[in-house]
Amino acid sequence: MGLIVQKFGGSSVKDRECLFRVAKTVTDTYKAGNEVIVVVSAQGDTTDDLIEKAKEINERASKREMDMLLSTGEQISIALLAMAIEKLGFPVVSLTGWQAGFITHSNHGAARIRRIEAERIRRELDSNNIVVVAGFQGLNRFGDITTLGRGGSDTSAVALAAALHADRCQIYTDVDGVYTADPRIVKNAVKLDEITYDEMLELASLGAGVLHNRSVEMAKKYHVNLEVLSSIENKPGTIVKEAVKVEKLLIKGVAKDEDVARIALIGLPDTPGIAFKIFSLLAAKKINVDIILQSIGRHNTKDISFTVPLADKDIALEVLQEKFEILGAERIEAEDDVVKVSIVGAGMQSNPGVAAKMFEALYDANINIQMISTSEIKISVLIARKDADRAVVAVHDAFDFNQK
Amino acid sequence: MGLIVQKFGGSSVKDRECLFRVAKTVTDTYKAGNEVIVVVSAQGDTTDDLIEKAKEINERASKREMDMLLSTGEQISIALLAMAIEKLGFPVVSLTGWQAGFITHSNHGAARIRRIEAERIRRELDSNNIVVVAGFQGLNRFGDITTLGRGGSDTSAVALAAALHADRCQIYTDVDGVYTADPRIVKNAVKLDEITYDEMLELASLGAGVLHNRSVEMAKKYHVNLEVLSSIENKPGTIVKEAVKVEKLLIKGVAKDEDVARIALIGLPDTPGIAFKIFSLLAAKKINVDIILQSIGRHNTKDISFTVPLADKDIALEVLQEKFEILGAERIEAEDDVVKVSIVGAGMQSNPGVAAKMFEALYDANINIQMISTSEIKISVLIARKDADRAVVAVHDAFDFNQK
Repeated sequence: MGLIVQKFGGSSVKDRECLFRVAKTVTDTYKAGNEVIVVVSAQGDTTDDLIEKAKEINERASKREMDMLLSTGEQISIALLAMAIEKLGFPVVSLTGWQAGFITHSNHGAARIRRIEAERIRRELDSNNIVVVAGFQGLNRFGDITTLGRGGSDTSAVALAAALHADRCQIYTDVDGVYTADPRIVKNAVKLDEITYDEMLELASLGAGVLHNRSVEMAKKYHVNLEVLSSIENKPGTIVKEAVKVEKLLIKGVAKDEDVARIALIGLPDTPGIAFKIFSLLAAKKINVDIILQSIGRHNTKDISFTVPLADKDIALEVLQEKFEILGAERIEAEDDVVKVSIVGAGMQSNPGVAAKMFEALYDANINIQMISTSEIKISVLIARKDADRAVVAVHDAFDFNQK
Repeated sequence: MGLIVQKFGGSSVKDRECLFRVAKTVTDTYKAGNEVIVVVSAQGDTTDDLIEKAKEINERASKREMDMLLSTGEQISIALLAMAIEKLGFPVVSLTGWQAGFITHSNHGAARIRRIEAERIRRELDSNNIVVVAGFQGLNRFGDITTLGRGGSDTSAVALAAALHADRCQIYTDVDGVYTADPRIVKNAVKLDEITYDEMLELASLGAGVLHNRSVEMAKKYHVNLEVLSSIENKPGTIVKEAVKVEKLLIKGVAKDEDVARIALIGLPDTPGIAFKIFSLLAAKKINVDIILQSIGRHNTKDISFTVPLADKDIALEVLQEKFEILGAERIEAEDDVVKVSIVGAGMQSNPGVAAKMFEALYDANINIQMISTSEIKISVLIARKDADRAVVAVHDAFDFNQK
């Protein structure tokens, strides 16, 4: 008995059969005596189809009009899901982002949620309605429709759970929980019953692909009780919650991130302020730099290399080429046939043997490490793209995940 | 130089080519120094496709959720048209029905417009933007999206023109104006340069199909300067305006209405109040009754026959069958292989020869008249469906439309 927010992604509502499967899950939860809010994404390929339509008209359409267009995708989903729930005989009402009270910042295409004015939803829940809400969208202070960008629907669900003090926020996906590695790559990957927000954050940002990190960050900030579970099979998923005191090292998983390119500036003058210049240029273009490596070159020069998201590679190169002479580098190199493989788990710092164990596993598999980065709860290495899956398997095998 | 509202239907925005043709018309009007508001419908078959989608899920989906679903159709249109206008290099903003301030009554699927809160549109015009508005939709006092039902986009355009005191409201269609008869049936049909609101109302409600009568009624009420013109050819259309004093008879056109069924109650007792009982039963079901004919039967009985829209035939029959014994009729007949053919024009009453001329034309063509109805500005006859097109041609030939 409580208030439960359930979120279903695009593939979970893609056709009639899927919609009724979701309707069944939702109404079962309602029948058990809960108040239920359901957040849904656009059906299947709808968003991609709409983007295609827009491109036919105008490759450089304004982001405001793109949001106007794309937000119809979720609006179609909520109406159809509400109709399916009506068909099963339950009271239901669908709400768009603006009807649900999502007030966002004004930047179209990647708006952040400012607040949720939840009176309408509260009123509908009080009228015993199941409330179906369009994820991914909101309204800015100009009264214009915005979209939240990647991972937006997860974020919508967590934000609603936070605003309405929901007892649980359930994210239904096409996997049945969070695994120690991608089960498609590592056969003996193990499903985790629990994971901390911080560990989930590292896994999410490393490309584990189950939850977007924006939603996990928000869940952590507002102490939202999060659960990742299967939209197909009816069994418990993985609970994401506050960190608990760890007694021993717990490696929670191995993640692979393919959205990465490496850029290297070779033969920079060995003078102070060079790194500052480079990274402030990139920051001005809002490019996220991840692993950074600086090494001494020959003849009083140094080399700086770093990774950026694939989509930012060309802009980063452009910016650096422009200032090439000021920076004084001999040359710039870029490559995108690299991936990042990481292990994630609390207690990493107090267990110095972990990194060694990971590197040994890669050495045994004859995989060359190009860059290394570590944090309190993760160790990442950059390796050749062709070695990615072998690396994940080798590292996963090196740690005994069945000990959990 | 002025404020112009332009409305384009679904077939005028159905694909890339059409959207750019509309964008050209709109931006030409803007370049000429006008403020421009564009009202558009959903693209081509979008609305039908969405209805089909809904039916797959739930044949009896609530009207509220249908409106939530269908309103996405125009939202897609406005975004794409705005993108096309952006592509041509003009400042533009698209607005949904609720953003444009359309406040409607609450009845979903056939909501009437209560008022337009035009601040947002006014602000956008003042910022020199072309404003693209979603027709057919609004918001009710519960904050829910409504649709206006058939002819809704025409009505949206006229309502905007009225609210903003536009200098002209141009309705672009796939014909280039209002004709004296359907040009597909009558080869020598003539395009009218001008027509009065009342004449247009009769033509619209008689199935001439160019403008929906709701929009004409509103134009009449608020003195909106209306123009019907072609979305394809660039030439003057037909102006719809206030009646002017007519010196001589002006038959404006011949219209055919196929959306009609005839119901007859045979052998009713010849007592007072029978007609009242019948028509209040039908009124309670909101069935519009058109031509009514009462004739004396044999043995102190009478027969009453009348026409209803095709879609209401079965409900009308059901209602009457239920009260069959109370009404005391011998039997009920219904037929739907009938059509209504009408001539429309001011000055009908002061020219008694007009009806005779029409009936003579039908007699010469050997077409049997089943029912007759007349008003100040029209004469309608009910005839067999098979004779419809021959009747339109015959009546059109009897009047000399080139005299105008």
